[in-house]
Amino acid sequence: MPRYALGVEYDGGGFRGWQRLTQPGLPDGHTIQGVLETALSSVADAPVATVCAGRTDAGVHAQCQVVHFDSDAVRDPRAWTLGATTRLPPAVSVVWCRPVADDFNARFSAQARRYRYRILNRQVRPALGRQWLSWHWRPLDAGAMHRAAQALVGEHDFGAFRSAECEATHGRRELQRIAVAREGDLVTVDVQANAFLHHMVRNIVGSLLEVGAGAQPEAWIAELLEGRDRTRAGPTAPADGLVFIGPLYAAHWGLPGGVTAEQG
Amino acid sequence: MPRYALGVEYDGGGFRGWQRLTQPGLPDGHTIQGVLETALSSVADAPVATVCAGRTDAGVHAQCQVVHFDSDAVRDPRAWTLGATTRLPPAVSVVWCRPVADDFNARFSAQARRYRYRILNRQVRPALGRQWLSWHWRPLDAGAMHRAAQALVGEHDFGAFRSAECEATHGRRELQRIAVAREGDLVTVDVQANAFLHHMVRNIVGSLLEVGAGAQPEAWIAELLEGRDRTRAGPTAPADGLVFIGPLYAAHWGLPGGVTAEQG
Repeated sequence: MPRYALGVEYDGGGFRGWQRLTQPGLPDGHTIQGVLETALSSVADAPVATVCAGRTDAGVHAQCQVVHFDSDAVRDPRAWTLGATTRLPPAVSVVWCRPVADDFNARFSAQARRYRYRILNRQVRPALGRQWLSWHWRPLDAGAMHRAAQALVGEHDFGAFRSAECEATHGRRELQRIAVAREGDLVTVDVQANAFLHHMVRNIVGSLLEVGAGAQPEAWIAELLEGRDRTRAGPTAPADGLVFIGPLYAAHWGLPGGVTAEQG
Repeated sequence: MPRYALGVEYDGGGFRGWQRLTQPGLPDGHTIQGVLETALSSVADAPVATVCAGRTDAGVHAQCQVVHFDSDAVRDPRAWTLGATTRLPPAVSVVWCRPVADDFNARFSAQARRYRYRILNRQVRPALGRQWLSWHWRPLDAGAMHRAAQALVGEHDFGAFRSAECEATHGRRELQRIAVAREGDLVTVDVQANAFLHHMVRNIVGSLLEVGAGAQPEAWIAELLEGRDRTRAGPTAPADGLVFIGPLYAAHWGLPGGVTAEQG
């Protein structure tokens, strides 16, 4: 069966996360996967099952989630993109579609995943754009957060930052880049890794917030990582501020520039 | 009575605009002015009436609307800011408060007003951040829009771009700056003028969209301005994409940097 890749953008605020809650074929309006598969099945006039690059939790957004699916339905990429988007709720859009080789897998072909966490750092809560911001009223030292975070770069066991429900067989991940920057009242944390453990970004951000607010020294992040003890890290940062920017794939898959890794 | 200035941020999506619909003192949960005056009156424990820098229409947002009000209630700026925000719906925040001189007037002291209009220019509608974006699927030439818009700079009669309901006594305004720029799929129109007529920004953007899509030549904007005939201009662009960035005041009023004009 021909295989397709899709780029999907969503506001996760009204959803219980990516992963469908019911069996395939049963209605599920509470998850991104549920509404997407319902829309694609309607375009295909046959059941469609999807595999995604990175399952997001309840409330987490995506700028470019990538999924693949197989279908015998003869539709061009434009028909999949516009047909699915028309059938989706306003919080979800299919931004692009590409036919891909049979051995492309949205999850296993991804070389890296990128996340962005956005914190409004001022005395009062956000009003405009609040749907995708988290809010921290204590003044944050973004420079200290950035310096502390550099201890996480490299291949490590990130057990200190995984949730109790994490089902991964081991905690080793390669964190390729982490950057904390301030622009006015907005503090942004950008993270890229080959893959992430459950709640890993939100637990890293929660711990960096302790450093930024001066409650912990910069060296604390390196100590947490070394200790591998989840109970010592900061609280999990709220979902609202987290956007899955998207995965990165090798250039030979022929996907759009935003999800294609630069040649190394 | 002591006078205060406030900076107010709001997501206008759920409101019928700035201006209150009922008499002062009666409940009005449908307008920004209504919910703000209700919150301030509760903090003051006495009726509070506000005057704003720029009345926004239904669905239009504000990054920093400025209002002034008079009150004998003895409250420090922090108490006004946090007390009002706690009593406001999530779509409205009071970001700052400053005591100001008696002759400060949020409307008449403003030397200029700035607006930003944000257009997502791609085949499919926005999902993430859709609350404050408008959407245009036809490819737009932002360079042509920018060049065409420069004809508007200066003092002119903007009758071609005012709405039929505009109550201003004349159409002369000084448009100080207009810039159209693209960043990826996002096309942004930034406009600054001493003051604006009703629907002026949205009518200018609606006409620039005709130029950007190639339906009209660049010189058409200058012709529209010259003709002063509202019936010839493009359709009014939707409210969702419009943000009132804020007014500008002379430095001697002592307001925050974001609403203070640079010394000329």
